[in-house]
Amino acid sequence: MEMSSPTIITSTKNKTGIKVFAPASVANVACGFDVLGFALEKPGDEIIARFSDEPGLKITKITGGKLPYEPVKNTAGYAALKLLDYLGESGRGIEMEIHKKMPFGSGLGSSAASAAGAVVVINELLRRPLEKRDLLEFAVLGESIASGAIHADNVAPSLLGGFTLVRDSVTNDVHRIHVPRGLYATVIYPKVEVLTKEARALLKTEVPLKSVVKQNANMGAFIIGMFNSDFDLIRRSLVDVIIEPQRASLIPYFYEVKEAAYTEGVLGCSISGSGPSIFALSENSLTAENAGLAMQKIYQEHKIECELFISPINMEGTILC
Amino acid sequence: MEMSSPTIITSTKNKTGIKVFAPASVANVACGFDVLGFALEKPGDEIIARFSDEPGLKITKITGGKLPYEPVKNTAGYAALKLLDYLGESGRGIEMEIHKKMPFGSGLGSSAASAAGAVVVINELLRRPLEKRDLLEFAVLGESIASGAIHADNVAPSLLGGFTLVRDSVTNDVHRIHVPRGLYATVIYPKVEVLTKEARALLKTEVPLKSVVKQNANMGAFIIGMFNSDFDLIRRSLVDVIIEPQRASLIPYFYEVKEAAYTEGVLGCSISGSGPSIFALSENSLTAENAGLAMQKIYQEHKIECELFISPINMEGTILC
Repeated sequence: MEMSSPTIITSTKNKTGIKVFAPASVANVACGFDVLGFALEKPGDEIIARFSDEPGLKITKITGGKLPYEPVKNTAGYAALKLLDYLGESGRGIEMEIHKKMPFGSGLGSSAASAAGAVVVINELLRRPLEKRDLLEFAVLGESIASGAIHADNVAPSLLGGFTLVRDSVTNDVHRIHVPRGLYATVIYPKVEVLTKEARALLKTEVPLKSVVKQNANMGAFIIGMFNSDFDLIRRSLVDVIIEPQRASLIPYFYEVKEAAYTEGVLGCSISGSGPSIFALSENSLTAENAGLAMQKIYQEHKIECELFISPINMEGTILC
Repeated sequence: MEMSSPTIITSTKNKTGIKVFAPASVANVACGFDVLGFALEKPGDEIIARFSDEPGLKITKITGGKLPYEPVKNTAGYAALKLLDYLGESGRGIEMEIHKKMPFGSGLGSSAASAAGAVVVINELLRRPLEKRDLLEFAVLGESIASGAIHADNVAPSLLGGFTLVRDSVTNDVHRIHVPRGLYATVIYPKVEVLTKEARALLKTEVPLKSVVKQNANMGAFIIGMFNSDFDLIRRSLVDVIIEPQRASLIPYFYEVKEAAYTEGVLGCSISGSGPSIFALSENSLTAENAGLAMQKIYQEHKIECELFISPINMEGTILC
C-alpha cells in the first residue's frame, strides 16, 4: 500500500502534528455476514496527533460527537494505547484530536474508522515503525471497546481499504478480494436509531441447514464473481438469506428502498453493518447515482431524514491528509 | 473444453459405437457442503453407445454392479432419455452398455459418473448437437434417480472436470474454480456401507449461527486461496465445522485416518460425499502419496479392507476413450 508523504501540520502550541483520514465502511455485505466488508471514500473521521511534553496519551479535542476523553474508554484512544504499549512507547507524551465526521450508530463503522485512524496516526507520528497491515490487531482491539467483541469486518476495510474478507478476527486472518473495474457503492443512512447490540440480540442463534448451504454457495460464487469480474454472477450471489430477513424490520421502508435500488439495476442491496444504513453495489457510477436518488426518494416521501453517499470502493483505506 | 476426436469402436453387430470414460468425484469438500466438488483421474465408469435398428433406448449390458436395465430407472438411462427427449431423438434406436468400474455407495459419485458418461456418449453418438456444458442439466436429472434430489455437486466435476462450485443445482449455476499448480488428491475408500440417504437424515436441520459464520468465512477464504494459489490459506480454510462432526461416526477410524493424513502435511482432509471415502488435498503428489500410505496403514492395522486413489485434479471430466 502506497502512502503519500506526511503533511506536517502545526498545532496551537507550535508543535508539529500528523493528520489522517479514516473512511467509513460497509460490513455484513449480503452473503458475507461478519465476514465481508468494503471501504467508502466518504464519510470518514479525521484524527490528529502530535507530541506533547506531558508524558502519556491524552485526548485533547473531540468534535462531531460525544465520546469519552479517557483514552482507555475511547476506541481511538484504546487502539492508540495498545499500539504504544506494543512499541514500548507508553510513556511518550502524545496529544490526540478526534474529529468525527460521520454519524454514530449508522451501520457505517464509525468506531472502526476512529480506531483505524488512531493506529495510523500514531504509527506515522512515530515515523512508521510498523507496516500498515500490522496495525490491524491494535485497531481491532480499539474497536472492541465500542462493539464489545473482536470483529475486524469494519476495521479491516477502513484501515487497509478495498473489499476485504475476514476469515478470523482473532488471528487477523484478513484478505483483500479483487475488485472489478467499475464497482461502485451507494449508501443511504436514514436517521433512525438501531443499536448494534440490539440488532445482534435479535438474531436467532440457529440457522436452517438449507439456508446455510444457500448462503455458503452464494459466498463462494460472489468471490468467484469478484475475481472474474463477472457482474452477472455477483448479482446472483449478492443475496442474504439469513440475516437480512431477521433485521429488515429494524429499518423503516427497507424493502421499498431495496426495490427502488433494484429497479435502477444495482447488483445487490442489503443492510450495511447492523443498519440502519442500506448499501447497494453497482457496476458503474451512473447506476450507483440513479439508485441513490431512487432510494433517497423513498425516505423523502415518508419524511424521514437521510444522508446519501455514493462512492467507488476506496482502495486506500486510512491515509495521511 | 477441448475433446479429442471420437474413437470409433465396432460392436458385435458390426455397428460403430462410441465409448466414454466418466470419472469419480469428491463432493462436500470440507467447507463446501453441497457446493464444492472436484474430479479424480480414476476410478470411473465406461459407457458405450451405438445405434441399433430397434427404436428407443435400450441398456444391453451392465458390468461391475447390479443396476436396473430399465432406462427410466437407471441413472445413465434416465439421463440419456432426458437428453434424447430434448433433442427430439426419443425414437432413435440406441443401445447402451454401462461398465461400472468404481464402487457404489463409496462417496465418490458413482451414480453421477454414470449419468455424466451417458449424456456425453449420447451427445457424441449424435455428432455433438450440444456443448458439453449444456449436457449438465440432463446428467443432473439422471443422477436424481439415484440420490432422490437435484444435486449437481458430483455431476458437475464428473462431467466438466476441475474443481467446481455449484451455486444452484436447479438452474445449473455452476462455476469452475482456478486450480493451483500441484494440487493433488488422495482418496481412501474403506469398504463399509454408508447410505447417502442415512448420512443425510443424520444431519441436524439447524446449525448454530457461530458455525455458519465460520464455515462461510472458510468458504470465501478457500476460494481466495485457490485463485491466489495460496496454499497456506487453503490449508487454514479447508475445514468443515458443520457436517463432518455429525458424520464422522459413520466412518470407522475417521479421526485416526485424518490425523495420519495431517501428519504427512496435507492441506485438508474430510469426508468425501457422504462417505465412507475420505479425501485429502495436498500441494504436491509426494505429500498426496505419503498421506495415502499413512491413511491406508490405519485401515490395514484394523483389518478393514480399503482402496486407495491418488490423483491430480482431473481437469477434463468425462472424455471419449
